[in-house]
Amino acid sequence: MEKYNIPLYQRLYEDIKYKIRRNEYKKNTKLESIRSLAKKLDISTTTVEKAYSQLLIEGYVISIPRSGYIVLSIDLPERSKQKPLVEPIISPSYPNNKLTTDLFDIKNYKAIINKVINYDSDKLYTECDPRGEVELREEIRKYILSERNVKCDVNQIIIGSGIQNLLHILLNISKKKSVTYITPEFKKAMNVFRAYNYTLKPRKTLKEIARIKADYLYISPSNIYPTGEVIKVKGRNDIIKWSKQNDAYIIEDDYNYFLRYNSYTVPSIHSYNNGENVIYMGSFSKIFLPSIRLSFMVLPVSLYNIYKDNYSRFSQGVSKLEQLTLARFMKEGCFRRHTKKLYNLYKEKNEVITSYLIKQNKHKNFKIRGNDSNLHIILDFKTKYYRDTFIRNCDRYPLKYEIINGSNSVIFPYSGIETKDIPKLIKALFYNM
Amino acid sequence: MEKYNIPLYQRLYEDIKYKIRRNEYKKNTKLESIRSLAKKLDISTTTVEKAYSQLLIEGYVISIPRSGYIVLSIDLPERSKQKPLVEPIISPSYPNNKLTTDLFDIKNYKAIINKVINYDSDKLYTECDPRGEVELREEIRKYILSERNVKCDVNQIIIGSGIQNLLHILLNISKKKSVTYITPEFKKAMNVFRAYNYTLKPRKTLKEIARIKADYLYISPSNIYPTGEVIKVKGRNDIIKWSKQNDAYIIEDDYNYFLRYNSYTVPSIHSYNNGENVIYMGSFSKIFLPSIRLSFMVLPVSLYNIYKDNYSRFSQGVSKLEQLTLARFMKEGCFRRHTKKLYNLYKEKNEVITSYLIKQNKHKNFKIRGNDSNLHIILDFKTKYYRDTFIRNCDRYPLKYEIINGSNSVIFPYSGIETKDIPKLIKALFYNM
Repeated sequence: MEKYNIPLYQRLYEDIKYKIRRNEYKKNTKLESIRSLAKKLDISTTTVEKAYSQLLIEGYVISIPRSGYIVLSIDLPERSKQKPLVEPIISPSYPNNKLTTDLFDIKNYKAIINKVINYDSDKLYTECDPRGEVELREEIRKYILSERNVKCDVNQIIIGSGIQNLLHILLNISKKKSVTYITPEFKKAMNVFRAYNYTLKPRKTLKEIARIKADYLYISPSNIYPTGEVIKVKGRNDIIKWSKQNDAYIIEDDYNYFLRYNSYTVPSIHSYNNGENVIYMGSFSKIFLPSIRLSFMVLPVSLYNIYKDNYSRFSQGVSKLEQLTLARFMKEGCFRRHTKKLYNLYKEKNEVITSYLIKQNKHKNFKIRGNDSNLHIILDFKTKYYRDTFIRNCDRYPLKYEIINGSNSVIFPYSGIETKDIPKLIKALFYNM
Repeated sequence: MEKYNIPLYQRLYEDIKYKIRRNEYKKNTKLESIRSLAKKLDISTTTVEKAYSQLLIEGYVISIPRSGYIVLSIDLPERSKQKPLVEPIISPSYPNNKLTTDLFDIKNYKAIINKVINYDSDKLYTECDPRGEVELREEIRKYILSERNVKCDVNQIIIGSGIQNLLHILLNISKKKSVTYITPEFKKAMNVFRAYNYTLKPRKTLKEIARIKADYLYISPSNIYPTGEVIKVKGRNDIIKWSKQNDAYIIEDDYNYFLRYNSYTVPSIHSYNNGENVIYMGSFSKIFLPSIRLSFMVLPVSLYNIYKDNYSRFSQGVSKLEQLTLARFMKEGCFRRHTKKLYNLYKEKNEVITSYLIKQNKHKNFKIRGNDSNLHIILDFKTKYYRDTFIRNCDRYPLKYEIINGSNSVIFPYSGIETKDIPKLIKALFYNM
């Protein structure tokens, strides 16, 4: 469990920060050099460097080339006479919400990047196509056709650096007024609608949505957050009927569609409806590398025709190298192999975590939900006390969780936990319960 | 001049397209295989593949795995019974508006990418920081401090996949109403303001701007498009005074600031004003590789404080690998070497093109303007006839140009033309004049 403790560099950073705050390290004095402090404490220079960097980021010290790190006064650093202090954003990183390194063959990816640079380097000297490179759009076309039965022309596919980026393009060309969705909301997506002054109409069920009017329905019919619930055939037909009656568009955010462990993947809404009234969206961030920002959307022909006359107004946000690398990764079959491996590893992780949770639950303090899909489980605790004990244990590492609005239910992501660490981790999470 | 002619693959594509349209190649028949056609015509298989790909993109044929390219009816392809035909976007590529391969050491870039994958691969398994990676923001901080005297905290720097992406964030957090700028407008930037229903107040001069009210001034004070004109000290002070009086923000888009061939680079507005009321923006697309989409902005503290409470609403659009690669590229000094080399090569190109234009201009048919900066020249033709002859010659290759609204002046970019091709090219551009 060592690795879930506070990292060494952070402890060092806290220690120095404390001494600066208490004026033990005085303004304008120099911090001990990285090398010398590392030697003194018998730790790596990288660790000291990281601690110093954090101090630098937060404004406790400044770095002067060929001189070192100089302590600033925390009350009034010299610069802040001219401008107010910039308070840093502290965004913790959670070890349970990432991709474990066994899940992606980075060496293979590196080989593909090198191929692209070797063979396609001339393409890197020209600007990006605003829609995305045709090589990648063609691979995506083939992929969503075979996997999701999404039939479209390569021209209808637009690549962007994330769902937010694509929504900006969509809302720019479509000029509508309102959006409905099943709660809880997709926060990042809804923020774009808010920015364009859309009226947001959150509803709890599809039935409620069927009774209202709206210009857009934002939905993941194959994987409703957070339960992973699937909208059945009838519901799908109702959505399509609703969209036609209201002249509304369905935004089908088909995220994590392939992560179903004990049931079948359901077909896309797009395939039910020949893509009329549907904007199909997909993303590679979860399925590929989280550090790569690449999403796409398939515009229905009606919107494509507007886009076509306006496309030069938009800039492509994804670098060409990354687009061409992914295209080649897909073309050479690596992507299919990767997703298969990913699926199997996640399935195993899901089974192990579920079985250990069941073992842990001798006293029936909680129920397990949502473990048929996705990369998280939902724990419905019997009492607030149990829930609070659990989240206190999470906070200690810290591990990421989300409380379902005001209830005793907690969403707990597990993608970043290695299978071998699960038994110990579960024990720690239920400590004192 | 061969390379400015229509490429072989395009001619082949046109020929096949013509035959499909004329029904000489019938619906559902198979196109000759790539290998066999290449052999018959004694051309490379790559060329045939490119022609076929174009036909595929435009919907004249479909590709069936292990079968080949099948001709679709162009009147009513089978799919269009179900949905309307998707007309492709034809976006020509212009050889004069790109980076020539001598300008960027792609091998060195490749080496840095490989270093990042080797040494920082664990970082690639986690999500991006919404603001951008701290390693890159720190390098940018040092760079703009030393080059542009922009003093800021690393926290105030936000990375995005282009100016449009950053403007979306800015307009999202600032909630203002109007923007002013000196014509001609920055089309892509202004489209974002339009999307947020801003009132656009274009003006011809700074004097006119000084007399109006607006929430934002969007300006490139060190390089006004297209002339490369510079706003002098007094103008700068006036802008700052105006922004304070109106409680307005100045968006300083500092593009191509370093491309001045016969005069000095002028300091940034940001440095005049301690960064109050100024959003400083920069981009790496022109200075680095055009296929890499990476820009940044420096928020003034007042806006940073709003951003800080809202940053988790935004997704980072630039991939981490690209951010870490650029960070290392800068840290190891490669970036400084690269921009120095770039500057020298552009300076040379600028001098050669200017001298050949002067030679060509024995009859004083045009004036040369704007050749002290940037990667284009402006030609003011004496008559519409001369202008039209010039642009007809451009269209023939095709080469990119832009007519300054209704005048006889033409903006001609030259970044993609190799120095050795300039003499011949100039001759061709003034053919019949």
